[in-house]
Amino acid sequence: MKYILIVCTWLTLTVIANAQELKSPNGKLELRFTLQTGGTPVYTLDYKGKAVIKPSKLGLELKNDQKSLLDDFTIADTKTSFFDDSWKPVWGEVKFIRNHYNEMAVTLNQKETDRQLIIRFRLFDDGLGFRYEFPSQKNLVYFIIKEERTQFAMAGDHTAFWIPGDYDTQEYDYIRSRLSEIRGLMTKSRTENLAQTSFSTTGVQTSLMMKTDDGLYINLHEAALINYACMHLNLDDKNMIFESWLTPDAIGDKGYIQSPSVSPWRTVIVSDDARDVLASKITYNLNEPSKIKQTSWIKPMKYVGVWWAMITGKSSWAYTNDLPAVQLGVTNFAAVKPNSTHGATTANVKKYIDFAAKNGFDAVLVEGWNVGWEDWFGHSKDYVFDFVTPYPDFHVRELHNYAKSKGVKMIMHHETSGSVRNYERHMDTAYKFMKANGYDAVKSGYVGPILPRGENHYSQWIINHYQYAIEKAAAYKVMVNAHEAVRPTGIARTWPNLIGNEAARGTEYQAFGGSKANHVTVLPFTRLIGGPMDYTPGIFEMDISKINPDNKSHVNSTLANQLALYVTMYSPLQMAADLPENYNRFPDAFQFIKDVAVDWDESKYMEAEPGEYITVARKAKRTNNWFLGNVNGEQPRTSEIALDFLEPGKKYVATIYADAKDAHYKTNPQAYTIRKLVVTSQSKLSQFSAPGGGYAISIIAAGKK
Amino acid sequence: MKYILIVCTWLTLTVIANAQELKSPNGKLELRFTLQTGGTPVYTLDYKGKAVIKPSKLGLELKNDQKSLLDDFTIADTKTSFFDDSWKPVWGEVKFIRNHYNEMAVTLNQKETDRQLIIRFRLFDDGLGFRYEFPSQKNLVYFIIKEERTQFAMAGDHTAFWIPGDYDTQEYDYIRSRLSEIRGLMTKSRTENLAQTSFSTTGVQTSLMMKTDDGLYINLHEAALINYACMHLNLDDKNMIFESWLTPDAIGDKGYIQSPSVSPWRTVIVSDDARDVLASKITYNLNEPSKIKQTSWIKPMKYVGVWWAMITGKSSWAYTNDLPAVQLGVTNFAAVKPNSTHGATTANVKKYIDFAAKNGFDAVLVEGWNVGWEDWFGHSKDYVFDFVTPYPDFHVRELHNYAKSKGVKMIMHHETSGSVRNYERHMDTAYKFMKANGYDAVKSGYVGPILPRGENHYSQWIINHYQYAIEKAAAYKVMVNAHEAVRPTGIARTWPNLIGNEAARGTEYQAFGGSKANHVTVLPFTRLIGGPMDYTPGIFEMDISKINPDNKSHVNSTLANQLALYVTMYSPLQMAADLPENYNRFPDAFQFIKDVAVDWDESKYMEAEPGEYITVARKAKRTNNWFLGNVNGEQPRTSEIALDFLEPGKKYVATIYADAKDAHYKTNPQAYTIRKLVVTSQSKLSQFSAPGGGYAISIIAAGKK
Repeated sequence: MKYILIVCTWLTLTVIANAQELKSPNGKLELRFTLQTGGTPVYTLDYKGKAVIKPSKLGLELKNDQKSLLDDFTIADTKTSFFDDSWKPVWGEVKFIRNHYNEMAVTLNQKETDRQLIIRFRLFDDGLGFRYEFPSQKNLVYFIIKEERTQFAMAGDHTAFWIPGDYDTQEYDYIRSRLSEIRGLMTKSRTENLAQTSFSTTGVQTSLMMKTDDGLYINLHEAALINYACMHLNLDDKNMIFESWLTPDAIGDKGYIQSPSVSPWRTVIVSDDARDVLASKITYNLNEPSKIKQTSWIKPMKYVGVWWAMITGKSSWAYTNDLPAVQLGVTNFAAVKPNSTHGATTANVKKYIDFAAKNGFDAVLVEGWNVGWEDWFGHSKDYVFDFVTPYPDFHVRELHNYAKSKGVKMIMHHETSGSVRNYERHMDTAYKFMKANGYDAVKSGYVGPILPRGENHYSQWIINHYQYAIEKAAAYKVMVNAHEAVRPTGIARTWPNLIGNEAARGTEYQAFGGSKANHVTVLPFTRLIGGPMDYTPGIFEMDISKINPDNKSHVNSTLANQLALYVTMYSPLQMAADLPENYNRFPDAFQFIKDVAVDWDESKYMEAEPGEYITVARKAKRTNNWFLGNVNGEQPRTSEIALDFLEPGKKYVATIYADAKDAHYKTNPQAYTIRKLVVTSQSKLSQFSAPGGGYAISIIAAGKK
Repeated sequence: MKYILIVCTWLTLTVIANAQELKSPNGKLELRFTLQTGGTPVYTLDYKGKAVIKPSKLGLELKNDQKSLLDDFTIADTKTSFFDDSWKPVWGEVKFIRNHYNEMAVTLNQKETDRQLIIRFRLFDDGLGFRYEFPSQKNLVYFIIKEERTQFAMAGDHTAFWIPGDYDTQEYDYIRSRLSEIRGLMTKSRTENLAQTSFSTTGVQTSLMMKTDDGLYINLHEAALINYACMHLNLDDKNMIFESWLTPDAIGDKGYIQSPSVSPWRTVIVSDDARDVLASKITYNLNEPSKIKQTSWIKPMKYVGVWWAMITGKSSWAYTNDLPAVQLGVTNFAAVKPNSTHGATTANVKKYIDFAAKNGFDAVLVEGWNVGWEDWFGHSKDYVFDFVTPYPDFHVRELHNYAKSKGVKMIMHHETSGSVRNYERHMDTAYKFMKANGYDAVKSGYVGPILPRGENHYSQWIINHYQYAIEKAAAYKVMVNAHEAVRPTGIARTWPNLIGNEAARGTEYQAFGGSKANHVTVLPFTRLIGGPMDYTPGIFEMDISKINPDNKSHVNSTLANQLALYVTMYSPLQMAADLPENYNRFPDAFQFIKDVAVDWDESKYMEAEPGEYITVARKAKRTNNWFLGNVNGEQPRTSEIALDFLEPGKKYVATIYADAKDAHYKTNPQAYTIRKLVVTSQSKLSQFSAPGGGYAISIIAAGKK
């Protein structure tokens, strides 16, 4: 791929009154930038003439500095340019991503301090990205951010899909409410979590999805969160103005910056068609191209794992129940009595390897294989795991050979327990151990409060750690799937070995009491804006007490909905999370999981409404096969879709895995139907979805399978 | 060496009333332990019948726990034992160290919680060590220390030599005052430093040296500070009770403990002869034996270095003056204009190598060799140094070869700027780089506030880092000389590659305005109790303006005093810190520095009074030669010493480097005399020392030189 950048100073700039104006390539979005009296930067954003962002201030409040970067500015220079190119992602929803925008970079001069600040706007057809740039200069070398003061003034009391702002967890159920209702719902929204730190009664997380009463869809997030604190949004609910609220460090500072430097991009995706939000590639486009030159070792994959049995409580991460506490290097695991519930035994893992090999899965994830799980959480335990010492009943070498003989890869698990220094200390050894034993991918975890205490999951210090882990892994050609790390912001473009994150409420919560039935109709509009999620779909047994009698959780989803997730929740890493025995009970439905692709050449968002439904069709990479998925919210619904994306004149066999008429996520989740039909690009489908349901369709080019 | 431990339960225990009593091997020290009403542990310590520690409480206050470990105790068990053995240090003041004590371990049971706490007392002839032990138990697995509540109740308003309590620096001048005067002197005592954090108007650091009005010398410190916060002492100056005050983390917690675990030892050295305090080996004896099995690579050494020219301001660490800031990996040093002051140039270092080779020094230290010094301090800069990239004018390989050809070792310098995560990330690479280039020892620095902000230099988290650095270095056979790390607590017994620390006000302050003339008569009673100090003596030019006209500092010491420091300030690592040209001006005096040993078979403390004078004679390892040093305080003084430590009947040539009669640290520091005489074990010496002066004597067995 070749990048083409044509810089045309003053090209599209129009100066209206005091305002500087920029339009999106298709002209539908219009940005205005101006300086208020007093020299405060202000911007607005319109979509087809409707206000998306009303006049909103820009700037940063500095700590212990002569003057903040908030006002007293004059415009020293304005440069505009346009950019249009396509790039090829290492993995993704589409074969090529078009990166097409008009740009305006405003250089501001602060008179009193003689400091320069650049605000760079990139206006795409589907939204806006802008960031602060701190060029190298004599009078602004180092500074401390007390708070970023970026406003997003809403034009009304929109409906929002939000989770409460928190410095330590992102694993909340989404609330749908008016902006004015956030304050009243905040307490209720903060369900219990293993680590959580709230800061405001109107603070929410990004990506924040909103819908206006006149039908605009607005999404606020950030892109390229590197060496900077993660942004929350705090709402002034009298004026409906969101303002950035960065995650502080232990002493309340929100960022230590050295110029030259840039902030992450602040993004506003906007359209009157919800499908455009799902299809938007703004977040990736605002990240830098891949820094990994040779990427052939990065491979999308479908996997199974020794995990759901643990999450449901059927089996354990721990090897023994006889230890009140563990001290690594001191505790002698060879001398303790094993429990009968340990999941990561050689024998059990072999069963998963067999299952993976038989059903065409690429890999097996195993948790609880390394010593320390008897006692790993919440005690400020620095040396909590060593990432290389297996339990006595987990034979690394034997399993390596066994998996290799079956053509199955193993996925390593590194739980840090928030003890990030300990992880960094062991990282080289751990990655070397992985590669020596045939592991090319790691699932990392950051469960519980961060060490050292006072730091939290999303401050600059810890953001820096996640990045370090990704880059260090890349050096060892290790793919990373980081759970409890910060929500992604498109960094996978630059570091495509970041093949997944959790960073939201995943399927595990279905075994912790359950999630909302429409949760998966919201996630693609929020969490997935920044990158793929290791959502771990594929649950066939919704009554968790059948797995573990002590766990009364119910999975709020139909079986067909679970199948659809492999298409609607885009990820290059897809788990079939349920127990093999549950898949063996439903081999006809399981066929879809076996068939579905994990990497795509095309994606067509066909229907979308946040909280209600999402329907998407994707063309499997290097094939003529399509897979179509629909997830549905609380109300029964019938999709009317045309298969006009198929190659004209060609015949396909469609296999439709759908909710039965009487299916319901709560009362009858396993009622599904499977039917096959021949379809062409002329075909139209009318397909029912039950509450919390959906459907999945494989569309295989005839003559091939 | 073989360890002999004979455990004799109830052997020496005497129960008087409710108290349990333990005597030191020689019977002069007597410890009493009892439980007050309410079950609070209390101890006392007497020396020859005089109260050293009046009834003082023991215990720990816990955070968020059902009950603190302060009271409600009963005595479940008391075990006494005695121990007598000698061990051979890898380097040291003596060939063998006797470890001789009576021990009493009291197991306490807290009734309400059914928790066990052991308090272990070891009573030596020269003092007491005791610690808390938290055995493995069901009801006390993890806990958070809110504060350790160990009291040291003084029997009077003693005279103390103290520096103010501080979480971030130990580099203060000592104050001599009554305990009751500490509060009034606190503000004045807190001279400016690059990073400092005070906590109390009566808080002081250990080791704290005191003298009672009836002639007892009492020293309070700690031993084996491992995985625990460093202890300060906070004075209740109404009742003259010191209480432990641990260094907190960013959220105020003072320790995260998992049982089984132990606290560091709290030490009380006591004698009516000040020399016993200097000769005490309690601190080492309370540490574990060496964990390094093969120690032949650990070598005491005398060195010179490119350092004093920097400290005085004559030359610079930085390579250029043209950079407002540096970004490692971005800043191109090849493209900037070098300044003319950079000290670590290949040519300049070669001069130091030549000087070292010519004068028999083992090694050359070079600071400012690696990129980043233009901009390294105080900006919360995470990636501040990489420890492997030299400036363009410092040729690592060429210097390696040159030094090797001259038989001189190079000492590496790693300044962390408090960015400890960055250091840990680069440590393996840095140590490998060292070994590949012939460096076997590193001087590490922790100048400025710790990252992440909120942490400080002496909290458990950072103590853990210093230990990690020592152990990691040992794995690479690297000797460590850590500056600005926590004051040592005898850990060099366990990790003898820790050959030095600064951790106090070193000679550099003589170039920052000057230190007190009696400073070096205090340090052996305070800072050196825990281990050797890289004090960097040997300054011959006291008028710093002669080195750098802009620096008006005066070194408050006579030249003879500087010579004596090589004997009085025991260290296996001794620098000749001054510029080669200053040594070349005084070749006769410099001869002593060339001659003096750095490792010893015997040490005789001949005279000692804190703040006044110290005279010590040491026998050089594997020779019959002795070196004798005296440092003197503000008052002129004449030593009367007998050389009865010499081998009877043998003749020696003594060369006496002494203050001239009119010498004075301020007005006439370079006035010295040198005289030679033949001495035997019958000889007695009457030797004058000027204010801030002293003398140094080499006593070479006749027939040998």
